[in-house]
Amino acid sequence: MRMYDIIQKKRDGEQLSEQEIRFFIDGYTKGEIPDYQVSALLMAVFFQDMTEEERAALTSAMVDSGDKIDLSAISGIKVDKHSTGGVGDTTTLILAPLVASLGVPVAKMSGRGLGHTGGTIDKLEAIPGFHVEITSDEFINLVNKNKVAVVGQTGNLTPADKKLYSLRDVTATVNSIPLIASSIMSKKIASGADAIVLDVKTGAGAFMKELDEANELAAAMVSIGNRVGRNTMAVISDMSQPLGNAIGNALEVKEAIDTLKGEGPEDLTELCLTLGSQMVVLANKADSLEQAKEQLKANLTNGKALEKFKVFLESQGGDPSVADNPEIMPQASHKVELPALKSGIVSEMVADNIGTAAMMLGAGRATKESEIDLAVGIILHKKIGDHVSEGEPLLTIYANNEDISDVKEKLYASITVSDQPVEAPPLIYGTVTE
Amino acid sequence: MRMYDIIQKKRDGEQLSEQEIRFFIDGYTKGEIPDYQVSALLMAVFFQDMTEEERAALTSAMVDSGDKIDLSAISGIKVDKHSTGGVGDTTTLILAPLVASLGVPVAKMSGRGLGHTGGTIDKLEAIPGFHVEITSDEFINLVNKNKVAVVGQTGNLTPADKKLYSLRDVTATVNSIPLIASSIMSKKIASGADAIVLDVKTGAGAFMKELDEANELAAAMVSIGNRVGRNTMAVISDMSQPLGNAIGNALEVKEAIDTLKGEGPEDLTELCLTLGSQMVVLANKADSLEQAKEQLKANLTNGKALEKFKVFLESQGGDPSVADNPEIMPQASHKVELPALKSGIVSEMVADNIGTAAMMLGAGRATKESEIDLAVGIILHKKIGDHVSEGEPLLTIYANNEDISDVKEKLYASITVSDQPVEAPPLIYGTVTE
Repeated sequence: MRMYDIIQKKRDGEQLSEQEIRFFIDGYTKGEIPDYQVSALLMAVFFQDMTEEERAALTSAMVDSGDKIDLSAISGIKVDKHSTGGVGDTTTLILAPLVASLGVPVAKMSGRGLGHTGGTIDKLEAIPGFHVEITSDEFINLVNKNKVAVVGQTGNLTPADKKLYSLRDVTATVNSIPLIASSIMSKKIASGADAIVLDVKTGAGAFMKELDEANELAAAMVSIGNRVGRNTMAVISDMSQPLGNAIGNALEVKEAIDTLKGEGPEDLTELCLTLGSQMVVLANKADSLEQAKEQLKANLTNGKALEKFKVFLESQGGDPSVADNPEIMPQASHKVELPALKSGIVSEMVADNIGTAAMMLGAGRATKESEIDLAVGIILHKKIGDHVSEGEPLLTIYANNEDISDVKEKLYASITVSDQPVEAPPLIYGTVTE
Repeated sequence: MRMYDIIQKKRDGEQLSEQEIRFFIDGYTKGEIPDYQVSALLMAVFFQDMTEEERAALTSAMVDSGDKIDLSAISGIKVDKHSTGGVGDTTTLILAPLVASLGVPVAKMSGRGLGHTGGTIDKLEAIPGFHVEITSDEFINLVNKNKVAVVGQTGNLTPADKKLYSLRDVTATVNSIPLIASSIMSKKIASGADAIVLDVKTGAGAFMKELDEANELAAAMVSIGNRVGRNTMAVISDMSQPLGNAIGNALEVKEAIDTLKGEGPEDLTELCLTLGSQMVVLANKADSLEQAKEQLKANLTNGKALEKFKVFLESQGGDPSVADNPEIMPQASHKVELPALKSGIVSEMVADNIGTAAMMLGAGRATKESEIDLAVGIILHKKIGDHVSEGEPLLTIYANNEDISDVKEKLYASITVSDQPVEAPPLIYGTVTE
């Protein structure tokens, strides 16, 4: 088998066999196939796409290129959730204790990552004492005991995906549905989940700006998951404006706690109930989505979800009193309100630009080496469709710098107030199950 | 300017600017842009093509990547001829002295090359004493004095093309009209020609098997040439069967001599007159193609073309008596006739397979290191459309090995004799001038 023939075959629009895909992934992982042949193949894939069979074979080959997490010692069906990323997305912090409170085992492997804010681990570290440095055995014991634990990424998972992603990043081949879908799914599958709920974002703040692209990506990932034997479904949700009101690390933890008390923003609460009920059903802990949703709703108001969050924090060294005293987390030195310059209806809150403003405050990492400021961020007081009067605050900026004129400018440029009535965008565009 | 953006632009079907193309070619030649980005761009070009402006800019940038031959000290319009390659193509050996006999300066830079037989220099070296190791000054003086000289490739011409070609060869991006056309034209232009006649072959023995591909390539090259200020035209000629009757090095020299005496095969003679008259007109040595052709025809029969050949040989150390005694060239030890297995009309002589048979005898190089046997080859006695009787020789094999059963088998498999009448294919399909 020769890499040249594999490139030519894909270039000419033919389907690659599982053997050919494995040859390419194994050879590339071992360094036997050079970057320049792989980038030519990736560009051919960009133009010629891959069939569902090819996508599943690519995903499996990438999973097999490295370590695989074994969660078999955890009883029950382990359901993982993955979001394609957005601005102010606090769902993981809420969903983990929420579905665990119904007995669904949540064995969450999480990262720090680059972006507008930190990753789940960064956010949790805003809570005094909380840490993810636990052994695999401790992790498994905690999930069996409490149904929820979070650990940092361990092992050499999907090295083929890491190499491929680095190459795609410099060869303009990132934006390809089969390559995006197999990359995401290979990481989820190597992390040991039995079933997967995907939250595919669409809109200005999402990777997939257009709804049809988001639908296509969701269908691609669901097909891969089900083909490799992992029960998978996807929810398409809005990211034209930020989700919830908080953007920032400690600020999002506070918002998660509010939501776990049943006092969270409506959109964030609703999305968590939707994703959570899918997780509960996939874990066989409810007979229907409606039943699951009712049970989850109940646990937000009866204190069980918040109690589960406290147990989870305490078991990993975190101070559970944060639930009643969020001010024990890092606090910003300056709180500055951004007043509306005119009265009207908020018609636009461009999510990625607002995310960039949070990053300018120090809430996220631009490079792996950047330091994150856990205290800073933005709290929105208005969302699309809301009325605002001139001078009324659109949002509050939490900063540790005095000069935030550039951040204000960015935010004003991201928010439009209209004279005409505007409807809030739908929160959920649909679900994809096959 | 970033290579990433250039890849993305081409990927998305946009036209690259001259500045972007130069940035890419200069950066790649200097080793500042890595292979893996270039191969991604090449694959994007494969799918998105290039405009005429882009093709000309690419060609010019490749020309400027290395040395350029300065032929300005040669008086007159220097017209070069290029063939896209085929089997038994002896035209260069004939055309050089033929058009020189009408006063057209022929400053031929030639190579050895890989293929079914050797390159022009290999063939000429079958003549005792002939050599191409002459200085640039000697070369220019010889052309000024005799109107014809041949030199080996000197200088570092189009290093960008060499690097690109090596990369295309291992990334399945050879077969792209803009890349083929710019590669060929960059070498011709760097070699210093003022005007260029292209012989684009089509059929089984050609790189462009289909006529429409050959037309497309011809139009691409003519457009590039004229855009960069070199008067360029192309002839599309047949390569479904070998050109002329001889395939092999010394055998083709003998055939060239016969043709220069006016006794050559009809197809080879006609193609040389067609290409030659285009060269004569481009060099302003005749007012019309018809006039040029008449003058060339005359010189084939009045001895002037043969005389020019002898002068040319002698001035580069070759023994001119070869014209009367071709047996002073290397001779094969075995001559074996291949009899027809049945009577009928020859309907197929698959050119590339017959070329491969010649190569199996040792007439060509498979790798740069291979030794060529100048004596061996094939002389065809029948061509498509000819009648043959059972037992009558189809061709004669000139070999230095006793066991040539594999060559015979290959040749029988390449030639079809039909019960039905078959017409000879046209020799020339057309000309492209703009």
